[in-house]
Amino acid sequence: MTQHERRAPRRWLPILDWGRHYSGRLLGDDLLAALIVTLMLVPQALAYAMLAGLPPVTGLYASLLPLLLYTLLGSSSSLSVGPMAVVSLMTAAALNRITDQGLADPVTAALVLALLSGGILLVMGLCRMGFLVNFLSRPVMTGFISASGILIAASQLKHLLGIELSGATLPTLLAQLPEAIHGISPATMSIGGGSLLLLWSVRHRGRSILQHCGLSPRSAGMLVRLAPIMTIALAALIAGAAGWLGHQVAVIGEIPAGLPPLTLPQWQPELWQTLLWPAVLISIVGYVESVSVAQALAVRRGERLDPDQELIGLGGANMAAAVTGGMPITGGFSRSVVNFDAGARTPAAGAFTALGILLVMLLFAPWLRELPMATLAATIVVAVLSLVDLPAFVRVWRYSRGEGIAMLATLLTTLLLGVEIGILVGVGMSLALHLYGTSRPHSAEVGRIPGTEHFRNIHRHAVETDAHVAILRVDESLYFANVRYLEDLVTTVIHREPPPRDLVLACQAINVIDATALENLEALNQRLKEVGIGLHLAEVKGPVMDRLNGTGLLASLNGQVFLSTFEAWCQLHGHASTPLTHPDIATSSLTSDHTAVR
Amino acid sequence: MTQHERRAPRRWLPILDWGRHYSGRLLGDDLLAALIVTLMLVPQALAYAMLAGLPPVTGLYASLLPLLLYTLLGSSSSLSVGPMAVVSLMTAAALNRITDQGLADPVTAALVLALLSGGILLVMGLCRMGFLVNFLSRPVMTGFISASGILIAASQLKHLLGIELSGATLPTLLAQLPEAIHGISPATMSIGGGSLLLLWSVRHRGRSILQHCGLSPRSAGMLVRLAPIMTIALAALIAGAAGWLGHQVAVIGEIPAGLPPLTLPQWQPELWQTLLWPAVLISIVGYVESVSVAQALAVRRGERLDPDQELIGLGGANMAAAVTGGMPITGGFSRSVVNFDAGARTPAAGAFTALGILLVMLLFAPWLRELPMATLAATIVVAVLSLVDLPAFVRVWRYSRGEGIAMLATLLTTLLLGVEIGILVGVGMSLALHLYGTSRPHSAEVGRIPGTEHFRNIHRHAVETDAHVAILRVDESLYFANVRYLEDLVTTVIHREPPPRDLVLACQAINVIDATALENLEALNQRLKEVGIGLHLAEVKGPVMDRLNGTGLLASLNGQVFLSTFEAWCQLHGHASTPLTHPDIATSSLTSDHTAVR
Repeated sequence: MTQHERRAPRRWLPILDWGRHYSGRLLGDDLLAALIVTLMLVPQALAYAMLAGLPPVTGLYASLLPLLLYTLLGSSSSLSVGPMAVVSLMTAAALNRITDQGLADPVTAALVLALLSGGILLVMGLCRMGFLVNFLSRPVMTGFISASGILIAASQLKHLLGIELSGATLPTLLAQLPEAIHGISPATMSIGGGSLLLLWSVRHRGRSILQHCGLSPRSAGMLVRLAPIMTIALAALIAGAAGWLGHQVAVIGEIPAGLPPLTLPQWQPELWQTLLWPAVLISIVGYVESVSVAQALAVRRGERLDPDQELIGLGGANMAAAVTGGMPITGGFSRSVVNFDAGARTPAAGAFTALGILLVMLLFAPWLRELPMATLAATIVVAVLSLVDLPAFVRVWRYSRGEGIAMLATLLTTLLLGVEIGILVGVGMSLALHLYGTSRPHSAEVGRIPGTEHFRNIHRHAVETDAHVAILRVDESLYFANVRYLEDLVTTVIHREPPPRDLVLACQAINVIDATALENLEALNQRLKEVGIGLHLAEVKGPVMDRLNGTGLLASLNGQVFLSTFEAWCQLHGHASTPLTHPDIATSSLTSDHTAVR
Repeated sequence: MTQHERRAPRRWLPILDWGRHYSGRLLGDDLLAALIVTLMLVPQALAYAMLAGLPPVTGLYASLLPLLLYTLLGSSSSLSVGPMAVVSLMTAAALNRITDQGLADPVTAALVLALLSGGILLVMGLCRMGFLVNFLSRPVMTGFISASGILIAASQLKHLLGIELSGATLPTLLAQLPEAIHGISPATMSIGGGSLLLLWSVRHRGRSILQHCGLSPRSAGMLVRLAPIMTIALAALIAGAAGWLGHQVAVIGEIPAGLPPLTLPQWQPELWQTLLWPAVLISIVGYVESVSVAQALAVRRGERLDPDQELIGLGGANMAAAVTGGMPITGGFSRSVVNFDAGARTPAAGAFTALGILLVMLLFAPWLRELPMATLAATIVVAVLSLVDLPAFVRVWRYSRGEGIAMLATLLTTLLLGVEIGILVGVGMSLALHLYGTSRPHSAEVGRIPGTEHFRNIHRHAVETDAHVAILRVDESLYFANVRYLEDLVTTVIHREPPPRDLVLACQAINVIDATALENLEALNQRLKEVGIGLHLAEVKGPVMDRLNGTGLLASLNGQVFLSTFEAWCQLHGHASTPLTHPDIATSSLTSDHTAVR
């Protein structure tokens, strides 16, 4: 069912659709998935909040009400909403700037950021502007995500080694390393290194070992996903023992038990203004990541995702985060895949996950405080290093040099200059590359394959041509980015010796002629008229013709509109057999007769 | 001759091309054109410098060395470089901000702005990035220029009426009017109103009256173009007389005689940083305007313009302005047309114009000081009101609602929020509109016109179809902006009852498949394989096929690549006549055989 078939309020509240068919069997599936996702989300929520430079509990707060809101408003049955690595990294960059300028403390700023981001997503959803995410191509997104993975891993060295490190770019982080390395805490490093080793081996060998032990591939996969929480529990025990022996290991500290506070983001114009731009970028990146994974999972179940409804769902979720002490959130890739694999069938699984988080907070809050930071950092590092997709760089580079360069440029600017400049460079390069491609469209002068009605490139095929009739085929819509190219092309053709008497534009690949191109065609027509060359159009598509009717171009066309290139050839090539003593008469006989084409 | 045929240094110095053939006849033509342009440029240079909020002499300084540089580096034989209305308005906006922040005085800031703008143009030219101007569509540019015309006219009310007005948007200017109107100086208003009336009538009736008096249309047109300088001379006499009678009229004041000072733009990081963004916008707008008029004039002479060389020419000219006490400049529309009509044949006309300006400064500087500001303002108003192109709004609106909205939005944001936001909104809307269009491409399921090899839309024509074979034609290149659309399209088709056994993508309108689309096609292929549906490609173009070879898509394609849709039909439709008892066998027989297509 598409969005256009639904009526309000069902159009805006997908829960009214799937909720009516909810059953005990769906409930069982959703509950199981929620249990597994909860166990995965607890360490992620704590760790990503720390990554963003916020108190760990912020991540838990952002995993309560927002998930309920997404259940009400979201359309994906598998997406697991909550704190997410890349968005948290971008949040950290934005909050850093705010605290540097002394505008607000991080917690206050995070609320405003979540509110702005939610508002932006919501407005885009209500205006059905989901298509705007198309500004980001896949290679650029991959370059950006890979760079984010590297940056996040580097930023976690601080917790892994128990040293002082800060900064938002790779050079600043690396520059501090030689100095900071002297402050390494051996106990922390041991816990961190051990956790890293354990998590790494479980991730890469755990599944096959468990299958070897007789578990089904699905159960084995599920257990491997729970490795972080088990490692953390183990590390907490070891850290406790170490502390007892006098080796201090940094732990996350007090987690307030109970419900999240109700918070109202502070109205402070300068703060809002400074955060607006980061909020736009966070919204876009978060949404693109989220909708990509939701789309991929929907496809696997043969479901259909409404991208505009996703904007509304994520927008609502972020606004909920803003009023309950949270931070910007979005759909996470790995958690959503787990949610899907664990059998989540409806967005209700998200609500049950929120319930799970609430139980954890109410019952286990005192225990959470003992979790060692180094192990949380290790779970982040192992998770984000899988975001670094080196094979994709090779693949894209081989397929398209231009897109490979865009990808590399995005990677490098993100690493060297930070996430915000990185994503902007990426968007800019995506667009520039596309415009560059379409601004120099493939085009060919074509001739007739003897004895057929087919016309092909004169440089690739042995074709019949006529010195008096030049036939140009442009393999691209005519729009503002390529009008100059067409002008150049025509100029070359009409300045040859002898100049052609007729110029035919074969329009089979032209899907749109925009206002800029129309104006240019009118000027071209005028100019060709002055030098006595006829301008003809052939194979104009229905929708293009519909719009051209009534314009000055057709009214003053110094030639004809032909249904097919062959028809143009027959009529114009025929003329050439009569001696060309009166070119002006020949031209004037070719008056506009475009009604035939309708 | 194109840039690729030339060798360095001739590639970068077009003067080495045209200079070798320079002759006495060309000299005569260029000198005459230079004389007329000089007389036109003097009042414009003074007035546009005032518009930018700079001392009038700045405009003259910007009309000396920069013109020589353009003669060396530029490629247009008709372009008249110098201060220009819209760029001066944008300069005013940038300088206002600088003085508001107390960062520098306007003169200092203008030098930095010219230097930055010149540097940006030069770098773009050396990197051959002229295609980047394609970011601006014609309707958006028209909307922006029209709004600029209105803003400039409104800002000149201050000089016309002798009142205090300041501001960069229409609301701020209009809000001050009721208050300011009390300060009107009757003498100034008389001079201003009279000049306006005179200039207006000469512009609209002068030509026909002069032709009536026996002048040739060309001479009449030329004389009309000189109306501003004659009006100014007349107004100076009247103002002098009025002053003698005790009615004080504001005049432009001291113009230092002699050569421009050598200036070095001040190195002040914060100033440069604040001016960088305005410089980017000024460069782009100035360049687009300049190249449009140069291109149009080149075409009329059958010459060819090198857009990248124009970037270098304008870049050099702006840097020259920065070191000789000038301001940002570009090629002006009306002056260039006059230059062309007056017979300028080579860029040397620009150098002679600079010589003319120099003579004026050396010989007539004491007289210039008596020119009444109100009359200069009147020449600006009459000039810029012709920039407001209302018929274009109607034309574009009728042709394309979307582009009409973009045009109106650009006009309104420029008027209400200022030039910088206006041009950004315009660029954003141009791109968004283009992406929106291509993200929902025209597509059709096609069937065979009985008895032919032609395939047409099943909803428009009576065609033969096969429930087992769905043939989809997408009328657009596949790239990051429309991959989701294709996914949706295919999802709809394969979920029908009964599902098709084969899906053919007819690719005749696909000029490019980018890396994002390739990845999606691979995923699509995988998914169709899982549900036992064959995916076939037909009519893949040569360049597209070249790039697809060697990718995972062709290696794992769950179907065939056919040369034509008809071939696909023959083979797949044939299968349907055998009973469908073994779909997996039928599928596996369709192994990839794409070598046939090369």
